Amino acid sequence: MTSSRTPGDKLLFTPGPLTTSATVKQAMLRDLGSRDSEFLAAIEDVRSGLLQLAGVSQELGYETVPLQGSGTYAIEAVISSAVPATGKLLVAVNGAYGERMAKIAEVHGIAVEVLSFSEASPVEPNAVEACLQADPSITHVAMVHCETTSGVMNPIAEVGEVVVSGGRSYIVDSMSAFGAVPLDVRDCRVDFLVSSANKCIEGVPGFAFAICRREALESCRGQARSLTLDLEAQWRGLEANGQFRFTPPTHALLAFRQALIELEEEGGVEGRAARYGQNHARLREGMARLGFQEFVPAEHQGPIITSFLYPQDEGFEFERFYDGLNQRGFVIYPGKVTDADCFRIGSIGRLFPSDMDALLSAVAETMQDMGLKPKSAAVT
Amino acid sequence: MTSSRTPGDKLLFTPGPLTTSATVKQAMLRDLGSRDSEFLAAIEDVRSGLLQLAGVSQELGYETVPLQGSGTYAIEAVISSAVPATGKLLVAVNGAYGERMAKIAEVHGIAVEVLSFSEASPVEPNAVEACLQADPSITHVAMVHCETTSGVMNPIAEVGEVVVSGGRSYIVDSMSAFGAVPLDVRDCRVDFLVSSANKCIEGVPGFAFAICRREALESCRGQARSLTLDLEAQWRGLEANGQFRFTPPTHALLAFRQALIELEEEGGVEGRAARYGQNHARLREGMARLGFQEFVPAEHQGPIITSFLYPQDEGFEFERFYDGLNQRGFVIYPGKVTDADCFRIGSIGRLFPSDMDALLSAVAETMQDMGLKPKSAAVT
Repeated sequence: MTSSRTPGDKLLFTPGPLTTSATVKQAMLRDLGSRDSEFLAAIEDVRSGLLQLAGVSQELGYETVPLQGSGTYAIEAVISSAVPATGKLLVAVNGAYGERMAKIAEVHGIAVEVLSFSEASPVEPNAVEACLQADPSITHVAMVHCETTSGVMNPIAEVGEVVVSGGRSYIVDSMSAFGAVPLDVRDCRVDFLVSSANKCIEGVPGFAFAICRREALESCRGQARSLTLDLEAQWRGLEANGQFRFTPPTHALLAFRQALIELEEEGGVEGRAARYGQNHARLREGMARLGFQEFVPAEHQGPIITSFLYPQDEGFEFERFYDGLNQRGFVIYPGKVTDADCFRIGSIGRLFPSDMDALLSAVAETMQDMGLKPKSAAVT
Repeated sequence: MTSSRTPGDKLLFTPGPLTTSATVKQAMLRDLGSRDSEFLAAIEDVRSGLLQLAGVSQELGYETVPLQGSGTYAIEAVISSAVPATGKLLVAVNGAYGERMAKIAEVHGIAVEVLSFSEASPVEPNAVEACLQADPSITHVAMVHCETTSGVMNPIAEVGEVVVSGGRSYIVDSMSAFGAVPLDVRDCRVDFLVSSANKCIEGVPGFAFAICRREALESCRGQARSLTLDLEAQWRGLEANGQFRFTPPTHALLAFRQALIELEEEGGVEGRAARYGQNHARLREGMARLGFQEFVPAEHQGPIITSFLYPQDEGFEFERFYDGLNQRGFVIYPGKVTDADCFRIGSIGRLFPSDMDALLSAVAETMQDMGLKPKSAAVT
């Protein structure tokens, strides 16, 4: 590992922004002109690096379109550019991020159907298939890869097979999974895969990106409902002169280029997946020892973020628990599932198994301060 | 001055991203959680600091809404949130950024009328008034403060008087002027004033902001045409829990907080205006000595960015000129006006009169390399 963290800041066990390496942040200590050849080369490095991570290339017919803003901006850009006025979007939903995609379609007046699943279980490809057979007017299908609401991993390859066999176009929100899970967008039949700079590639927030099958991207031409979130125009601009259409987040982009170098040094997505897997295993074992139960059954739980149920103990108050950890330098995340009281702990970012141990010690101490007794739970 | 630049990078004589201080960039060497109290305090500092710069406060009925993305994102958020389905926008246009506002309205299907002026002269308040009298269906008026296309300053107070007397709502794109020119948004009758983090406050790109009269902002409720660019929802989210609705550019925001501190240390907007004024005077005098003519008459030229006509000499090629300066460490900007061959030189960012001198020496050297002879022009 060539890079370490800046000492002093709290560690972020969240879905992002994440803890990043000192060297990633130091890459921002420069001011490059947005049209300068050095900056244009950085954009090109980032665009081609992302294709490589996705297992594809321009030769194979894929393109990367970076877009200013948070991940949701890129999701909105894809949905509002890809689905034509006469189209209809099916969203397979098992959490808040799936719901958000449906909401985006609604705001734009795009016909949308929601296929709902429990927040604790993955989307079922058969149900998607049945939906597509029942409604020929559906033109696009959208799904979240890792539902950050709960931590459930959805079967993107299996759903992709069903979507493409049904002759539809496939949009995947891989916000919190891309870079953490080996993935080939072509094998998974994805037309538009969206993720963000401040997730598992371990950059800083400021832009997001869509990895697009070129033909699908070209078909967006003239369909966008806004100026800044026009995915195809953004791509055409980049192709024409290598530049973002509007002022790019130059510093965040330089940080991201450095993050891609460090991902490569870690052994690529496989190497990173191994570290995150170790982090996650350490977390699960430790939390089980302390008596915490997971919300998602182990077979559906991804290595990105884990939802833990509040302990049954009356003495547990989430705010006190959160503050106790925060004071010790550990930032966790509130829950987001609708039908259970949970909090969430992420395993991603520049965190190592030793950090999970430190967090677990802090959890034990905080429980003791709150007068809670650890009750060992079985690791499933 | 407590802060200096990082040595090594080229100096940016552009409309932005700009050269920033080393300390502004160093403020990004941290990873804060987006919901952490320290980060929420930074958001609050930025929001209230911006109101102060605009000469207003929450008590006076004004609000700051920061929004992820470039300045154009915030312009689109304002236009597509503020103008209702039954409304009509008048855009007073004397350059590409005014045209862009009209384009945004068109993309959203908002009724729009364009009142055009020459790129070398300011918008005329009387013409705006006549337009408003002739068309009672106009509900909103939009104008650019400093038209970065040319460098012309538009009379925002005079146009504001006409707009408000006519009972219309007033939107100002002050992207490249805010922070560089003393301004009171209440005196200028502005309902929505938009600028960006990477302009004259000398932060880094990653977000923009709108300073809004609260009543006008409240009237946007439910009118937005997109999810992420919903200005009123962004404000409501900030008011509810102090957070951005979607992942904020944490690092860019920390840089901006530092930039606000450094602006204060420089003597606020007055102090900065004085430095930019000195930069601009030094530039004009030096370029005139070298024989360059300005595109905009002196009485309409702002201190932000200046368009210079290509020399009449046949030996002048802009690409060679640009490259010559670039190799010497000076980044200038191509022209953008439609009816004359120009290039542009900015006077903003962490630049000092000595930097203008260095640039002027490099211009003289580059001209010599190109076999061009300086022909002194009169400073008007």
